[in-house]
Amino acid sequence: MSLQPVLIAGEWRQSRNPAGMFTATNPATKAPLPDQYPVSDLPEIEQALQAGQEAVAALRAFSPDDVAYFLECFADNIETRTEALVDMAHLETAYPVEPRLRSVELPRTTNQLRQAAQAARDRSWSHATIDSKTNIRAKYGPLDGPVAVFGPNNFPFAFNSAAGGDFAAAIAAGNPVIAKANTGHPGTTKTFTEAALDAINQSGLPSGMVQLIYRTPPAVGLKLVSHPLIGATGFTGSKWAGLKLKEAADKAGKPIYLEMSSVNPVFILPGALKERMADIAQELYNSCSLGAGQFCTNPGLAIIQQNGQSEMFISMVSALFTQNAPGTLLGEAGPKGIAEAIAILQQRGVEIVSGGYPVESDGFVFANTLLRVSGDRFLEHPETMQTEAFGTVNLMVVARDTAQMAQIAAQLEGNLTGCIYSHTGTDDEAIYEQVEPVLRQKVGRLLNDKMPTGVAVVSSMNHGGPFPATGHPGFTAVGIPASLLRFGALHCYDNVRHHRLPPELQDKNPTGRMWRIIDGEWTQGDI
Amino acid sequence: MSLQPVLIAGEWRQSRNPAGMFTATNPATKAPLPDQYPVSDLPEIEQALQAGQEAVAALRAFSPDDVAYFLECFADNIETRTEALVDMAHLETAYPVEPRLRSVELPRTTNQLRQAAQAARDRSWSHATIDSKTNIRAKYGPLDGPVAVFGPNNFPFAFNSAAGGDFAAAIAAGNPVIAKANTGHPGTTKTFTEAALDAINQSGLPSGMVQLIYRTPPAVGLKLVSHPLIGATGFTGSKWAGLKLKEAADKAGKPIYLEMSSVNPVFILPGALKERMADIAQELYNSCSLGAGQFCTNPGLAIIQQNGQSEMFISMVSALFTQNAPGTLLGEAGPKGIAEAIAILQQRGVEIVSGGYPVESDGFVFANTLLRVSGDRFLEHPETMQTEAFGTVNLMVVARDTAQMAQIAAQLEGNLTGCIYSHTGTDDEAIYEQVEPVLRQKVGRLLNDKMPTGVAVVSSMNHGGPFPATGHPGFTAVGIPASLLRFGALHCYDNVRHHRLPPELQDKNPTGRMWRIIDGEWTQGDI
Repeated sequence: MSLQPVLIAGEWRQSRNPAGMFTATNPATKAPLPDQYPVSDLPEIEQALQAGQEAVAALRAFSPDDVAYFLECFADNIETRTEALVDMAHLETAYPVEPRLRSVELPRTTNQLRQAAQAARDRSWSHATIDSKTNIRAKYGPLDGPVAVFGPNNFPFAFNSAAGGDFAAAIAAGNPVIAKANTGHPGTTKTFTEAALDAINQSGLPSGMVQLIYRTPPAVGLKLVSHPLIGATGFTGSKWAGLKLKEAADKAGKPIYLEMSSVNPVFILPGALKERMADIAQELYNSCSLGAGQFCTNPGLAIIQQNGQSEMFISMVSALFTQNAPGTLLGEAGPKGIAEAIAILQQRGVEIVSGGYPVESDGFVFANTLLRVSGDRFLEHPETMQTEAFGTVNLMVVARDTAQMAQIAAQLEGNLTGCIYSHTGTDDEAIYEQVEPVLRQKVGRLLNDKMPTGVAVVSSMNHGGPFPATGHPGFTAVGIPASLLRFGALHCYDNVRHHRLPPELQDKNPTGRMWRIIDGEWTQGDI
Repeated sequence: MSLQPVLIAGEWRQSRNPAGMFTATNPATKAPLPDQYPVSDLPEIEQALQAGQEAVAALRAFSPDDVAYFLECFADNIETRTEALVDMAHLETAYPVEPRLRSVELPRTTNQLRQAAQAARDRSWSHATIDSKTNIRAKYGPLDGPVAVFGPNNFPFAFNSAAGGDFAAAIAAGNPVIAKANTGHPGTTKTFTEAALDAINQSGLPSGMVQLIYRTPPAVGLKLVSHPLIGATGFTGSKWAGLKLKEAADKAGKPIYLEMSSVNPVFILPGALKERMADIAQELYNSCSLGAGQFCTNPGLAIIQQNGQSEMFISMVSALFTQNAPGTLLGEAGPKGIAEAIAILQQRGVEIVSGGYPVESDGFVFANTLLRVSGDRFLEHPETMQTEAFGTVNLMVVARDTAQMAQIAAQLEGNLTGCIYSHTGTDDEAIYEQVEPVLRQKVGRLLNDKMPTGVAVVSSMNHGGPFPATGHPGFTAVGIPASLLRFGALHCYDNVRHHRLPPELQDKNPTGRMWRIIDGEWTQGDI
């Protein structure tokens, strides 16, 4: 049992006057893990902010290539620590070592870091724009303070506050990061931070480039995201916590990017159901149960039409939910939250088709749960019907007809994703044309004939969407280089002498490959 | 004396159950103008929102070319109404007909509309991004509701809520607009809206594309920007009103873009002062007095160093402020606001060098006012020292040395602009290197040897900056096509069948000229 240090200003040190201590829990055994972690109070947060500000200033002497090199060293260092990371994350999350942790999520994480390095080195993300006639030039540059990253519990690697997508984007855009570990996996986050500190030393970047705290009292968290010295915040987690942080940051005029909640509706049109019912049932179950249903893009809502196939489909999905063993959830809050959500839904007339109860187990387990409700009922209480149950839970909505399907789409809150399954021929085309325009406005990513849980790390990916899925419909948390734009400030130079301009805005293309907009045209050339 | 109609859902009609009425005032005579305008209550706002939503849906059947054609018709219609617009704006603002209204601001306005039309037709603004291997495609598309535009009092044409920069950007991005007239120039705004309605009829766009209200009770304004049916809001005006609207919109998760307040610091380095004192004094006076000092980018703060030149420079600027007659302010709030700001500054030790009093006149006039304070004093009360006085008022800060200049820069709030005047040779280079990095983080646009009041409408222009100059450091209100991004939502299509994709994301380039990112490279080609 040892109290783990925080990383402030390049130094691993014991937290000074911590506001408390906590341990993580092994979700497979419900037993506390041995290490203790400090709860950092305001003075410690302010030291981190101050060191972050010093790093902002010191970074001016470094080039994007240095930042890229840091990210690449970091990715390498993570790989050399694979076993330690996988072992620790397995203890802290109960996720299977194979394939999830070692073969899927860890490579995804290092891939993201290397893509971010490439984006930093390439520099095209900064949208350098030059009007030669007026000699006005602009690009995105770093923010005026460090970026705080709050990572979620469900991706201990790929969205880790000290190694995941927000981290990579903030760093690649030229900002230092203050990582606030998710309290579910503090040990994993500490191991990442050790690898990051090594990379800082290898690359020579400022010591305050990456700092780590584990937890704060709630009021101190609000102070962090609204502090005069913060640049911006990236948050992935619950709507409850996210909205509180948003309010504090908004009031102070500090950018905050949130990924909060999403029920990810899947519309299954009649022709598709008729054509390939069993396949779709299997796909739906697979997507619902991935990571024990603890994905941001987990399909929590499926909308079908009442017809000859609908009852058979529900039975088929129910059978899959029942036959397959439920996974272990990340913590005590898991089964509790699911039970609460189901109770809320039941109060409004939702029926349980299968599951609906916690499972006696060594770990935190809740039965795979299929729910159903009529379209009429859904439309009576559309907001309640979108209560998120974070686990293998799906609410099947049985709509009377196409018009009601479109009405349901119109009542959706903002979501990360929305799927439409349709007949491979043209049988569903008219229905698609009624549903899609409504759904399009409600989601960040619209899919055809594909479940939403796979989030490819490609430049066109939008892991975002209208509120309350996120805080702003114009930004994505995945998809490089677009995700970097969240952590950039638009810097315009008007009549600034040539030698004083950043290299990206000088006449000569600094890399010979960077894309810039010169006099209205994208080009890799010089002026 | 007649009560003017609102434009709702394509129909000019009397306001139903208005919450009140108001008239505009001729600032040159302080006399009320004859026309009366209604104060719209919540039901009317909701009718406009509903019609705006219908326009959002109807717009799906139109192409960007149709929107571009509308903007071009509108620009033409404005030109045919030049005399009516200029006459009305002259009455409502007391701005000179020549050159300001007819030869500067009106052409700027039609130029903006035509640039926006070009951006809409070109489509490159939407950053279409295609990953061919994964078949994931994304672009910015319109928001999920109409855009409310609140225009400021100081640019009756170029920032008019029914014709200015926010209007042009919102429309070009494919959104309907609900214009909330500035109450200082409702007649001008109505005339623009008449021209817009003609353009709607010419182009065949949905009737709810442009709607007009003049004023709301404060609580109804808050409801408008936070309403479930609104897409986003563009606001230019006072910090006081802006922060209230921001709070309401933020809470509802609705994007709001604000341009609020800015003192636009001008740092004049010692070598520049020694080299060309008289020129800089004249430039400073010219910029301070432009539009009677009522520019968002008006330089309210000048920072010089105490030395053999500093007193002479202050005398020289003071002489220009005294010799030249002050302009007429836009309304009663003008002289009152300036007097209040000066009183606040004086309480903290700011001294009046010249001016400082309202001028007896037929119109609203306040003496050109030069203020001074030491760098020490400034640093004791940095926030108070940045109190904005919206008129020909400049606070000259006399810093002890370069270090103190940099300290002053570090204490600045977010501003639209920051200028540094330096020696044309290298005399000031070392000072520049100390001041610029600090100032860079505080402003949207950094200038060299140039006053901030000219805001060129070019693609690299950033009319934005960190809070509280605006609500977000990554967006600009001027500069096309970048200004369109504020009114776009990121729309991703994952595995969507080719014929269902918007033309911008299909394999074939829809214009043959649109810039898209295909597999990581900007190109005008097809897939």
